[in-house]
Amino acid sequence: MTSRKKILLISTGGTFNKTYNPKNGKLEIDKNSDALQMIAKKWLCEFEILNIIGKDSLEITNHDRLELLSTIHQSSHHSIIIVHGTDTMDVTAEYLADAELEKTIVLTGAMVPYSIDSTEASANLASAYGYINALEKEGIFIAMNGVINRYEKVKKNRKEGRFIYK
Amino acid sequence: MTSRKKILLISTGGTFNKTYNPKNGKLEIDKNSDALQMIAKKWLCEFEILNIIGKDSLEITNHDRLELLSTIHQSSHHSIIIVHGTDTMDVTAEYLADAELEKTIVLTGAMVPYSIDSTEASANLASAYGYINALEKEGIFIAMNGVINRYEKVKKNRKEGRFIYK
Amino acid sequence: MTSRKKILLISTGGTFNKTYNPKNGKLEIDKNSDALQMIAKKWLCEFEILNIIGKDSLEITNHDRLELLSTIHQSSHHSIIIVHGTDTMDVTAEYLADAELEKTIVLTGAMVPYSIDSTEASANLASAYGYINALEKEGIFIAMNGVINRYEKVKKNRKEGRFIYK
Amino acid sequence: MTSRKKILLISTGGTFNKTYNPKNGKLEIDKNSDALQMIAKKWLCEFEILNIIGKDSLEITNHDRLELLSTIHQSSHHSIIIVHGTDTMDVTAEYLADAELEKTIVLTGAMVPYSIDSTEASANLASAYGYINALEKEGIFIAMNGVINRYEKVKKNRKEGRFIYK
Repeated sequence: MTSRKKILLISTGGTFNKTYNPKNGKLEIDKNSDALQMIAKKWLCEFEILNIIGKDSLEITNHDRLELLSTIHQSSHHSIIIVHGTDTMDVTAEYLADAELEKTIVLTGAMVPYSIDSTEASANLASAYGYINALEKEGIFIAMNGVINRYEKVKKNRKEGRFIYK
Repeated sequence: MTSRKKILLISTGGTFNKTYNPKNGKLEIDKNSDALQMIAKKWLCEFEILNIIGKDSLEITNHDRLELLSTIHQSSHHSIIIVHGTDTMDVTAEYLADAELEKTIVLTGAMVPYSIDSTEASANLASAYGYINALEKEGIFIAMNGVINRYEKVKKNRKEGRFIYK
Repeated sequence: MTSRKKILLISTGGTFNKTYNPKNGKLEIDKNSDALQMIAKKWLCEFEILNIIGKDSLEITNHDRLELLSTIHQSSHHSIIIVHGTDTMDVTAEYLADAELEKTIVLTGAMVPYSIDSTEASANLASAYGYINALEKEGIFIAMNGVINRYEKVKKNRKEGRFIYK
Repeated sequence: MTSRKKILLISTGGTFNKTYNPKNGKLEIDKNSDALQMIAKKWLCEFEILNIIGKDSLEITNHDRLELLSTIHQSSHHSIIIVHGTDTMDVTAEYLADAELEKTIVLTGAMVPYSIDSTEASANLASAYGYINALEKEGIFIAMNGVINRYEKVKKNRKEGRFIYK
């Protein structure tokens, strides 16, 4: 049997994981990442999945980023996909780049919760998965809305609500 | 602006593109690939998309494969994603391999129509898209259910209804 | 506590209950009516649900209709909703009318499986449920696509794929 | 051709009509009630639909209720379905009851936006539609989660997130 790349999936929360709570009428982050785990296991592969932080990316602090970095350092995986909120995905990417990790890391997420638009969230996650499977370089990458490259070459266009190449 | 890979998307029909016709109660192949075009343009990129053949893969003949090969030869694109039915995806992959094309081609599709399970179809297409974006080799590849590799290393497990590594 | 009408829900199969089998690529009738039971229990009420016949309505015979009639005769419920395929819904309605039952019976179903278009199937079932809750007459009724009346006043328009008033 | 009841559909906003805005990450009320109009026209009937107020029901004031009452007074329709937020559905129902209208009015809505759970919203609306079609009494009624009766006999159970009989 052909071995496939062992990939660690770290979920930090973000819009991808938001679900509607009918009791208070709010979208809340599912800290268990149930939808993400379902897609990953059913349609991608038997990832090891770690749930940490569990926040909207506007609320992620450098203390949280330190927890993320520590989680990455402790892992033996070389290939890591991080599901992250879109608003500060670039900040976290730069933070990880500064750590000069000898790993391949792809950040992804969703503009709309999986519970509302399953197509966008699935497509982003799967594009990150496909990308990391073929990638033979180290570094920090972003995969959003079909825009996939080193983190410093892409950015979120807030007005249009999507990621674009710089 | 960073240029991204120019990718040609060829849709040959297959389960991915089946939609329900309430007048006769049957699942029929949408020869315009509307759902595929929507996902590709909305969530991946402004592909050039070609609709040819428009068949269930059990009905694809070598005459159809010749049409596919001819379409590939006539294209200036180096990177090509082919949406294909799953039952003879391996036969078409081998047919294309025999032609010794100097191109990078990834075949993908769906076990369940996008109109019934949007997550699986989106994930397969996007994983192929992510893979081809990072790939620096030529050859014929298959991307299905998170199983992505050279075509001769993967196969459909009919009993379990999913692709596996050989 | 206000008592609500006790309603029996009989599922005979039909398009409403069809689900996709990825192993053979066919839509098959779920003889357990899982989707129907989920909607009924989650969004309508704790029905008693009986699964009988389990066929596409084109295949329903008078032998099957006798089984349906016998099930109705054996039930103590006065108000009954029957989920039935659309092609011979009128034939079954007339068959039941000929039996001169002293009950209120509403037939409903779907033009498209719940697994493909949850809105239509849910709307048909719930309209039948709302109708039978307010109804103070006996007889055989049909509720499809917002067209709700005594069975002899409505018919399926096969060309347009929907029910209309005669 | 059999005439069916002419029904006016008034949409006041509420959770039913909330959609996700990816630019600010919030659920916002669609003041055009696009989803409601789609379901109504495609699966129920060619309603006349009026969009007024456009608010979450926690923000509805007696000034808004006066606008609703005025809209009802000005209408020639005898049968009216009102889509309303669930938190103050009972307050609005009582307000309308005090006006001693000689009309049949059914209030409905959704615990979860149609854009997130199409089944619940469709089922509530269609149950109200079925109910009003069979109803031969005047008064103010509520149809939510299969609980359908005069407004004073039902209430929202906030803890369980559903309507129940008193």
